[in-house]
Amino acid sequence: MEKISWKPGTMIYPLPVVMVSCGTKREDYNIITVAWTGTICTDPAMCYISLRPERHSYDIIKRNREYVINLTTRDLAFATDWCGVKSGRDHDKFSAMGLTPIAATKVKSPMIKESPINIECVVKEIKELGSHHMFISEVVALNADDKYIDLKTGAFMFNYARPICYSHGKYYETGKMIDRFGFSVRRKKLGK
Amino acid sequence: MEKISWKPGTMIYPLPVVMVSCGTKREDYNIITVAWTGTICTDPAMCYISLRPERHSYDIIKRNREYVINLTTRDLAFATDWCGVKSGRDHDKFSAMGLTPIAATKVKSPMIKESPINIECVVKEIKELGSHHMFISEVVALNADDKYIDLKTGAFMFNYARPICYSHGKYYETGKMIDRFGFSVRRKKLGK
Repeated sequence: MEKISWKPGTMIYPLPVVMVSCGTKREDYNIITVAWTGTICTDPAMCYISLRPERHSYDIIKRNREYVINLTTRDLAFATDWCGVKSGRDHDKFSAMGLTPIAATKVKSPMIKESPINIECVVKEIKELGSHHMFISEVVALNADDKYIDLKTGAFMFNYARPICYSHGKYYETGKMIDRFGFSVRRKKLGK
Repeated sequence: MEKISWKPGTMIYPLPVVMVSCGTKREDYNIITVAWTGTICTDPAMCYISLRPERHSYDIIKRNREYVINLTTRDLAFATDWCGVKSGRDHDKFSAMGLTPIAATKVKSPMIKESPINIECVVKEIKELGSHHMFISEVVALNADDKYIDLKTGAFMFNYARPICYSHGKYYETGKMIDRFGFSVRRKKLGK
């Protein structure tokens, strides 16, 4: 085994791949797919998306300073890819993909009904890094589909939604569960 | 299907779960596992990690302003979890987990030999957001294991390394490949 050195590049994978919905009126609703996203702080709950300034959604989000992150699933894989390739300048992406815009609770941007988790975000700062500008944001509300809530335990079973990820140019399903956080130090129960 | 509103929280998943190595001398080498990480800019290649200031690695990285992101795999799942739970104040994590520190190319922090991809990072700015501080960083070098390079095509087959992700408190394997970026608009070849 040898290590090969490459020039600097973006190689943190697998990543979430989310559909970001924006706009405050039906005419300017748009969806952009983003893998440059993640959580940056637990308390307060904060996240980011990074966008190229030339993207149609960039101006919409910069103007309104809010957006919704919609998590994606196996069933949404086609729409996820399409909304990342096509431009809102040429398409009404909600209509084209058969997605349903519904009202969010704290922001004017629409949520995508077909997504299992909708994260409402308010922009706190825009950092112009280079090819991408980072929208540093606060999570102001979370919405979840009740169909993924286990009726016995009340737990949200995100994996029932078949979440997908993006890794080095390809989309993947989430695979086999390995274990829970903390498994390496958890004492095994007697008899197991 | 009904949407249930939750209070604000961190729900962007699945996320990468990486082992961050730091320190400039063997005595202070440490590893901290992080899921609050991602790419924030393509050109220049930039990424971030967010850490709680009370973590042992926080001071090391703040002092040295550099670290290495080591991607994780099925084989590294136990060490990944353990390095996220335990503290470098009490353990030499490299020794405890049987991991091998090797020299990086541009930074003094060690790389984890057993990881398929090592991303060398230099800190540009530290943002104090709340429970977590975000280390906004530039990627200065990338290193890859040659054993994942396809000898016929020269392509790096990251999936051969069995990368893992972290989703809502659990670790998962990367599952079935769905398709490549752009599949929704790619014209099918004749005869296929």
